Amino acid sequence: MTVGTANPDPIQRLILELGRLPGIGERSAARLAFYLVRGSRRGGSSLAADLAQALLSVTKDVCLCDRCQNFSATPTCRICNDGRREKTSLCVVEGVADLRALEESGAFHGRYFVLHGALAPLEGIGPEELKVDALLRRVGNADEGIEEVILATNADVEGDATALYIAGLLRHSPIKVTRLASGVPMGGELEYLDQATLGRALADRREFSLG
Amino acid sequence: MTVGTANPDPIQRLILELGRLPGIGERSAARLAFYLVRGSRRGGSSLAADLAQALLSVTKDVCLCDRCQNFSATPTCRICNDGRREKTSLCVVEGVADLRALEESGAFHGRYFVLHGALAPLEGIGPEELKVDALLRRVGNADEGIEEVILATNADVEGDATALYIAGLLRHSPIKVTRLASGVPMGGELEYLDQATLGRALADRREFSLG
Repeated sequence: MTVGTANPDPIQRLILELGRLPGIGERSAARLAFYLVRGSRRGGSSLAADLAQALLSVTKDVCLCDRCQNFSATPTCRICNDGRREKTSLCVVEGVADLRALEESGAFHGRYFVLHGALAPLEGIGPEELKVDALLRRVGNADEGIEEVILATNADVEGDATALYIAGLLRHSPIKVTRLASGVPMGGELEYLDQATLGRALADRREFSLG
Repeated sequence: MTVGTANPDPIQRLILELGRLPGIGERSAARLAFYLVRGSRRGGSSLAADLAQALLSVTKDVCLCDRCQNFSATPTCRICNDGRREKTSLCVVEGVADLRALEESGAFHGRYFVLHGALAPLEGIGPEELKVDALLRRVGNADEGIEEVILATNADVEGDATALYIAGLLRHSPIKVTRLASGVPMGGELEYLDQATLGRALADRREFSLG
């Protein structure tokens, strides 16, 4: 579009805003913008209009769950409100995307706690920047009935440090603290695995069970 | 997020809408949605809010330029309104993204005409689906002063067919009809070029000019 005038062009503005999204470069932003403009000119309920409404809705309607810090449209999120979930297990994750991945796996039936980050001292992210206090309050509340805290932070330096830190805080509590297993991913080929994963898989090897 | 309930979750809805964008899969859509939600919770003017406004603006404010069919916020676009552009050259492109790429090259100083597509009979796109009539009207209007029509459609089957079709329509007019050169792209290495490009570059070879 014609650039460099005082009056901002609506398409140029859309390209700029789309380009602020992570992983979307200027070319992708322009391609998406033209796609959206083309669609919006066909009449009816366009993707541009639907997307705008969805964006406005998240800016207005999303808060943090008062129990687990998950994003939620209600003061307490659906998982925390769901009486069928196991009360005894609390799975601690770095972010809501991790919670979502675990939910989609269908392998966990307890409740979650979202830290909203991981310890990264070099970036100025200490325990105060995370929701550690709220985690300790929840775990320490006998009404919650939590018996096990599963530390499901990422298997990288920050995630390991965060898990170690929280495990240290809970050391003297009666609560069992566990960490997700590390090792060869399902379907993984040893030939293409990094040394750290192979080393961990070897160190944590388990006895073969003949069903 | 918790899926599968009657009341739609605002974040789930945003993920669905983002996933309708071309090239954005479900995982990318979720990643973008969480990025937008995190940003919108920090207060101030968030990307989610800015992007929503930009989207609403294009749905309301963008029309097609009455002279060149470019997207425009005004009845006639800035390029057509710009008296400094050469009147004699009209560059015919398939889409607004092509126009944008040519503008960014800085190599063309005439005006444009956007077809909004290319002939693709198998997909049901014939001349009626393109803006061919409007093109002929503009080219045939003596007030426009057009002396050359540059066919800058893509160098693929549809683009070539479209260029050929328009060249045929203009065959008996006094207007010069040209096509963008095809050949080795600047910086291109012959070793990695496809056969069709190499063949065309060889067929269209030009005499070496010693300054």
